[in-house]
Amino acid sequence: MKIALAQLNYHIANFEGNSKKIINSIQKAKEGGADLVIFSELSVTGYYPNDLLEREEFVEKAEKTIHEIAGHCTGIAALVGGPSINNGQRGKQLHNSAWFLKDGKVSALRHKTLLPTYDIFDEYRHFEPNNEFKLIEYKGEKLAVTICEDIWDEQPAANKFAKEKLYSVSPLEELSKLDPDIIINLSASPFSYNQENQRKNILLKNAKKYHLPIAYVNQTGANTELIFDGGSCFINANGEICTEMSYFKEDFQIIDTDNPPVIKQSKTDVIGKIHQALILGIRDYFFKSNLHDAVLGLSGGIDSALVCALAVEALGSEHVRGILMPSVYSSDHSIADAVQLSKNLNIKYDIIKIQPMVYEFEKQLKPLFKGLALGVAEENIQARTRGVLVMAVSNKFGSILLNTTNKSECAVGYGTLYGDMNGGLAVIADLYKTDVYRLSNYINREKEIIPQNSITKAPSAELRPDQKDTDSLPDYDTLDAILFKYIEQNQSPKEITETGFDEKTVTKISRMVNKNEYKRFQAAPILRISSKAFGFGRKIPIVAKFRY
Amino acid sequence: MKIALAQLNYHIANFEGNSKKIINSIQKAKEGGADLVIFSELSVTGYYPNDLLEREEFVEKAEKTIHEIAGHCTGIAALVGGPSINNGQRGKQLHNSAWFLKDGKVSALRHKTLLPTYDIFDEYRHFEPNNEFKLIEYKGEKLAVTICEDIWDEQPAANKFAKEKLYSVSPLEELSKLDPDIIINLSASPFSYNQENQRKNILLKNAKKYHLPIAYVNQTGANTELIFDGGSCFINANGEICTEMSYFKEDFQIIDTDNPPVIKQSKTDVIGKIHQALILGIRDYFFKSNLHDAVLGLSGGIDSALVCALAVEALGSEHVRGILMPSVYSSDHSIADAVQLSKNLNIKYDIIKIQPMVYEFEKQLKPLFKGLALGVAEENIQARTRGVLVMAVSNKFGSILLNTTNKSECAVGYGTLYGDMNGGLAVIADLYKTDVYRLSNYINREKEIIPQNSITKAPSAELRPDQKDTDSLPDYDTLDAILFKYIEQNQSPKEITETGFDEKTVTKISRMVNKNEYKRFQAAPILRISSKAFGFGRKIPIVAKFRY
Repeated sequence: MKIALAQLNYHIANFEGNSKKIINSIQKAKEGGADLVIFSELSVTGYYPNDLLEREEFVEKAEKTIHEIAGHCTGIAALVGGPSINNGQRGKQLHNSAWFLKDGKVSALRHKTLLPTYDIFDEYRHFEPNNEFKLIEYKGEKLAVTICEDIWDEQPAANKFAKEKLYSVSPLEELSKLDPDIIINLSASPFSYNQENQRKNILLKNAKKYHLPIAYVNQTGANTELIFDGGSCFINANGEICTEMSYFKEDFQIIDTDNPPVIKQSKTDVIGKIHQALILGIRDYFFKSNLHDAVLGLSGGIDSALVCALAVEALGSEHVRGILMPSVYSSDHSIADAVQLSKNLNIKYDIIKIQPMVYEFEKQLKPLFKGLALGVAEENIQARTRGVLVMAVSNKFGSILLNTTNKSECAVGYGTLYGDMNGGLAVIADLYKTDVYRLSNYINREKEIIPQNSITKAPSAELRPDQKDTDSLPDYDTLDAILFKYIEQNQSPKEITETGFDEKTVTKISRMVNKNEYKRFQAAPILRISSKAFGFGRKIPIVAKFRY
Repeated sequence: MKIALAQLNYHIANFEGNSKKIINSIQKAKEGGADLVIFSELSVTGYYPNDLLEREEFVEKAEKTIHEIAGHCTGIAALVGGPSINNGQRGKQLHNSAWFLKDGKVSALRHKTLLPTYDIFDEYRHFEPNNEFKLIEYKGEKLAVTICEDIWDEQPAANKFAKEKLYSVSPLEELSKLDPDIIINLSASPFSYNQENQRKNILLKNAKKYHLPIAYVNQTGANTELIFDGGSCFINANGEICTEMSYFKEDFQIIDTDNPPVIKQSKTDVIGKIHQALILGIRDYFFKSNLHDAVLGLSGGIDSALVCALAVEALGSEHVRGILMPSVYSSDHSIADAVQLSKNLNIKYDIIKIQPMVYEFEKQLKPLFKGLALGVAEENIQARTRGVLVMAVSNKFGSILLNTTNKSECAVGYGTLYGDMNGGLAVIADLYKTDVYRLSNYINREKEIIPQNSITKAPSAELRPDQKDTDSLPDYDTLDAILFKYIEQNQSPKEITETGFDEKTVTKISRMVNKNEYKRFQAAPILRISSKAFGFGRKIPIVAKFRY
């Protein structure tokens, strides 16, 4: 059988756009002589529509679109992902389904069995799980159709006391009893750099275990925080890769399932993939919202320099504007470095001194603050004055403010709410500071784009004289190692200390993370590139008393 | 049998505080001669600990606390809510359990069967559902122990195409087959004014249906957004109320389950309950975070006046400070009304003119804005200048900024990000403007606290000359009716129009709601009083294209 794998970039609720892409690929598959074309999970709606699924008019439009697509399936069959109404007497009103289309109409429906409800996933909120297992017979072959998580019944442990098997049923076990010829998987599997090879390994393992070929179709593109990396593939019954599709872009391929030649697995380039992921994340945030221009504050530091370089790659230098907002505490090199960056990237930049506004704020507040020492309030006035300025530019020109917070800062609560925490999109808030350095060096791999001085100088918020990040934090290698264990690995401070870190430092850092939930609650959406990003994949109550 | 119902106010992760309260109530129940004392759902941890449940040290501490509490259960038994480890081979690592404690130790465990995963509930994220039904035998009686949702197998429809039965199993049906003597329910059921009587009706209906008495223990208190209203009760096998406990405060009662006298159902006073709910919400946000002082901007308008009055009731007048920040567009009565309010409430207030800062911002931005018309950018500079000022006071004095946005504004995106959307807690953002008027009149029921002029004058943001809310919005009666249908009832614009509203207006309003998801994403936590509040109970993607 000839199968086309269509790896597309979908846009949530953009039924016209999504169906156009799907119909184009059906046409292409037909022209290429394919018997079947496979799309990914919830391809008609985009992943994840969330509570739009509670709106009847949304679900009706999704079904209508699928029926329109079915009209194009003559002389070819297609598997398209979309919601379907639960016809049972009980349960959630929808299934997360694979629609099998042929002869111009809907021919069969298969529903997702395992509904991920952890981290960023929330599928039990809307869907009723499948509980009957049937194959689809087509052109003499028996297809075992699964959706994403269905082939992930063995989950990596979220922590030490997690079960080896997260689900009480294994769809592949059930389906394999029916003697299928091939496993098909429609996926919406987001990128995370620290689970890079895991997905491929699960596919290879399952192909070997059941001695069945697997046609796996993931999607690409970003929908706000979530970035899908593609990498769709075909694996033969020996667990060998025959096709591995592009990462972070659309792709289309037709394979003959009878003994396709085996290829070598692609090598993983983690930092290169993070780079591609963030650019795709920025691009899709803007273009899918019909926005084109970005603005950001440039401090001369590495974080804003990195975000600026990424934005220029994503949007083009004519669509990025830097605002330099020096204060009396800014060092000369801060301005020089930011100017150099702007020149290297060929972007428009403006310099606005914040002192006049800061002076007026302090003057007007003097009667209230009389007799009180200078402190955080005054530091924040500087950060917030900058926030007002960049937002004014954003409002005036319809450009979106990019937030430049990194994950280390975000974790410990460095950063001023309504100041440097402002932004429509937080580009690197899932990237630890040590990775900010790595990615910056990667960006400079061919020529100096980010000024070397921004990379080598000691990090500072420059909100008071001679301030350095290390005044109140350990060095970033230590900080990031502790944070990774605490956040990504859910280790307790006790366990972290036992792996060789100073107890007092670990306790302090853990407390800072806990204490700053209230700030992160109001943070901009964060492009997710790790297995545990701040945002809706990590839900910690604000009013809680969990002290170490 | 004599049963004590202990309706307490728990604090998430405050194991010491929660267990102290529980142990005190056990002691009191013993002294009152009770055989059994019942606490509510997840009483040891508070509701809802969310991803703290993924931390091993958190779960260990919860279990340890329960075993300590068990030590106090001699001569009495107790049912305490808390997580327990799933000992099965598969599934989520925890159960949401009722721990039956007697003879100084854990005697039995019963797990929650129906795990709500909709609106603000997310229990499938952490818990494995129960699937075996057993009673607990104690002192010759057979107890059917259930947890919250277990008695709610018939759900009110979230929309027209929802199923009548949300779950595939009915715990009460299963347990009733085992011939129990009483149904016990440990609950964490949050208040919502438009579901006020529904809970009681479900209890009455089930008591009658199974001809069994029900002992129902809800909790009280607030944890950030969620406000629990208490109202625990005992209902006899005829479906008559024998005990109805306090609303919005702790309570304790011992009842004799043999023919207790029937009482009259309490009458519902919706606006009075909203009033109590919001005060409890403010109070618990502050006190559970060990905070005491609030600050807020007073515009002379009704929203800030209402929030100020509620804050004074919750925290005391000496703990609330108003900041009046007139601009050149502020009318004289704005200042006069805000001053009058401050005097009526006996709070400290300061007046800071924003013109000097606004002038400097505009001056510094002049080179960038040259030749461009005045507009939203300039309006937002005013709102954000106010935001900087109140946050400076907040930072300097450790007082928390209260946000004064109402639900109507929040829905259509009126309000400036990093300006008047600032705040640690949004007090009335789940209250439509029409209810803001109702509650304000309620607050003035005995004497004028909120100046009558703030109530009667036409609402205006006062960001440009002679601006009125009705310049770009329909009157609030119409707006709120449309919003309620769109948000609470999930009606489509087409359906709303068919109920008698102008099509163009409905389309415009629906679009405004959709377009402003990005703003609400960064909003302060909102005290929830309705069945559909903005925040984590309503998840709509930002980058989506769902146009009407």
